[in-house]
Amino acid sequence: MAVFLPKGTRDLMPELMNKRLEVIDTVRRVFARFGFEPLETPAFERIETLMGKYGDEGEKLIFRILKRGAGGERGEVDLALRYDLTVPLARVVAMNSGLRLPFKRYQIQPVWRADRPQKGRFREFYQCDVDTIGSEDMSADAECLAVVQESLLALGFDRFTIRLNDRKVLRGMVEAAGVVEQETAVLVAIDKLDKIGKDGVSAELARRGIGAESIATIWELLEVQGEESLDYLAERLGETGQQGIAELRQVLTWAREMGVSDEYLLVDPTLARGLDYYTGPVFETVTPVAVGSISGGGRYDGLIGMFSGRSVPAVGVSLGLERIITVMDELGMLDAAAGTAQVLVTVFGEDTRAASYRAATAFRSAGANAQVVLGTPRLKKQFKAAHQSGARWVVVIGPDEAAEGKITLKDMHSGEQSVLSLEQAVARVTG
Amino acid sequence: MAVFLPKGTRDLMPELMNKRLEVIDTVRRVFARFGFEPLETPAFERIETLMGKYGDEGEKLIFRILKRGAGGERGEVDLALRYDLTVPLARVVAMNSGLRLPFKRYQIQPVWRADRPQKGRFREFYQCDVDTIGSEDMSADAECLAVVQESLLALGFDRFTIRLNDRKVLRGMVEAAGVVEQETAVLVAIDKLDKIGKDGVSAELARRGIGAESIATIWELLEVQGEESLDYLAERLGETGQQGIAELRQVLTWAREMGVSDEYLLVDPTLARGLDYYTGPVFETVTPVAVGSISGGGRYDGLIGMFSGRSVPAVGVSLGLERIITVMDELGMLDAAAGTAQVLVTVFGEDTRAASYRAATAFRSAGANAQVVLGTPRLKKQFKAAHQSGARWVVVIGPDEAAEGKITLKDMHSGEQSVLSLEQAVARVTG
Repeated sequence: MAVFLPKGTRDLMPELMNKRLEVIDTVRRVFARFGFEPLETPAFERIETLMGKYGDEGEKLIFRILKRGAGGERGEVDLALRYDLTVPLARVVAMNSGLRLPFKRYQIQPVWRADRPQKGRFREFYQCDVDTIGSEDMSADAECLAVVQESLLALGFDRFTIRLNDRKVLRGMVEAAGVVEQETAVLVAIDKLDKIGKDGVSAELARRGIGAESIATIWELLEVQGEESLDYLAERLGETGQQGIAELRQVLTWAREMGVSDEYLLVDPTLARGLDYYTGPVFETVTPVAVGSISGGGRYDGLIGMFSGRSVPAVGVSLGLERIITVMDELGMLDAAAGTAQVLVTVFGEDTRAASYRAATAFRSAGANAQVVLGTPRLKKQFKAAHQSGARWVVVIGPDEAAEGKITLKDMHSGEQSVLSLEQAVARVTG
Repeated sequence: MAVFLPKGTRDLMPELMNKRLEVIDTVRRVFARFGFEPLETPAFERIETLMGKYGDEGEKLIFRILKRGAGGERGEVDLALRYDLTVPLARVVAMNSGLRLPFKRYQIQPVWRADRPQKGRFREFYQCDVDTIGSEDMSADAECLAVVQESLLALGFDRFTIRLNDRKVLRGMVEAAGVVEQETAVLVAIDKLDKIGKDGVSAELARRGIGAESIATIWELLEVQGEESLDYLAERLGETGQQGIAELRQVLTWAREMGVSDEYLLVDPTLARGLDYYTGPVFETVTPVAVGSISGGGRYDGLIGMFSGRSVPAVGVSLGLERIITVMDELGMLDAAAGTAQVLVTVFGEDTRAASYRAATAFRSAGANAQVVLGTPRLKKQFKAAHQSGARWVVVIGPDEAAEGKITLKDMHSGEQSVLSLEQAVARVTG
């Protein structure tokens, strides 16, 4: 019987899993250092919880689950697989009125979208969201930047740029250009600047009915890059823009006090970030190697209250875990030997099995990862397996060694081989 | 808008999540020590992969997913949520013909079953399976026992019993009792011995049509408990039974060489384990506190080949993660403060924000989990939050301290308060 995986899915085999676990452990530790706490929500939600939240296009991609029993036989649907981690978070906040705010949580779980499968794009993929719910203070936004910097440094990235802007600054620009009605169209176009260049954006703006004068104003406002743009725009924008500039100045001040280095920070008035729901600072991280951003986020004060009817300020950042892992793997930043047994104990024959098992147990008791050969396959096969395993140390206990209470320890890096007591061998491996 | 969770599901809030992560990290480390490697498979499988694998009753509990597009509108189904981790493992083995055997993997992922929700029983729950695929050798079975012992010891359990039997021994008993035809009924009845007692089992056997003489033979065979039962049964069982006895003797020998203590081992000829598919040694772990077993497993040589058409020997054990976490939580074995920030840095006012952020950053750089208050809420509120946070250390930096470059560090355990330089404070917290 031939079996297949569902379209757009994959198994995470041990080699990749070990690397993923390494990345996830690292970012978890950073999140905890900042006081973010873990949350998990069920894989599926009631269908009415998800409907109307992702637009028509998004909604088509939701996996829907048949009702159990008679309803399902009639094709009725009552559940749907999680599409992101934000709507479930809003539900958690609405259902837990006693939650102490600010609620700082991270959530690392898969989501499911019936997108057209592409290379490196799957219908099941992990999201890794870090959010602070219930604080309007710009220190919460600054903390997001610090979490991104510390996560990437902990993972071993040394070249990356956290681009920073504010939706109120962008709103100030479209106000100044007299195109508030077309704000979304303008932001969507500007967001493509990296991909299609200035001429491309101008053409798209014109196609969307923005007049030549407004387009000229937009480019004039975007003329100055970096932190100087704040002074430049302060002379040119109205009240909303000024608010955005003030927010950015605060974020920059607090982020620096939290240890974010100017080396990694870039104020970028062209950064729009596509999604509608951002209301304040927005940020994303790019590296010289990754195509697209490896993290993105911002303030979204209108969204978390969707179920509770209260206004609940929120800011967060999403680490692009799948992309980060892909990039790190391509750059050889992930330990290929992660999770591999350090010690492989061979079994010479029936008479020496007990000695081999005892040796493996001694290594494990000392905290080493020690794999023992199961059964008594041919020695040639065992040595081949030892090489393939990637284990640093290989142990051989032949009848002579067993009789003398010794073991032969081979260092696979140096090729050096020593006959040692078990205690000596354990000390060498774990020392 | 009122929102609800789907029936039978729950959110894993931070306090519980921190404890779960602690448990999962601990068992992962033990699995790695034995050379088991992590695997993850997609949440859903093609519907035909799962159908016909769980019996009629099981199949009713499977969550089925509507086809995307027109098919779904007609009520067509093409996917289903994972019901266990064994069928996906069999699929992985069938699809990866180059897999090096033995394949030793563990898998910790949720499964979904539309069971009637009960207290402590959910429609989404984690399974934690450890299996060795491709070895017939009893050292693989012994390793399962060692993994269970080491996992439970690492988690802090000190009283537990790993009950051990062999399906071939049980087969030998039903042969000797002349009731091979009713083997499943006999095993199902014997499996209830703990719950309904000897009289209850006899009554059930009689109800199932087992004659009085056969019932008497069964009780006679079950008369001797513990390892002595092996000698006792060796004189009374036929060939299949002898094979089972030989398997158990090997498992016991190798398990002991692998460090499994007699304190935790019990040969128990009454242990049947309900599931049909076991073919050799079976085992489960009970504790004086848990209702039911906290781990169970055995050899199941017929199952993994279901898709590949090859015969693939397999043995594995499942840790009852949800039950283990519940028991540990009830017994206070889990660190209530797990994941909590060690240090909480308060913010006295606008003028001292920068000093507080710098202090929090210094603690984090030294590896401590340090949370800083966001914004400048009233001090009274901050101190209340500090108490609720469970943080061991609270930092206060008022204008005087800020001017002198000092901080006040309060030890919430002793109540002691000291005015220190930041370096001194960091050293005290991390030292």
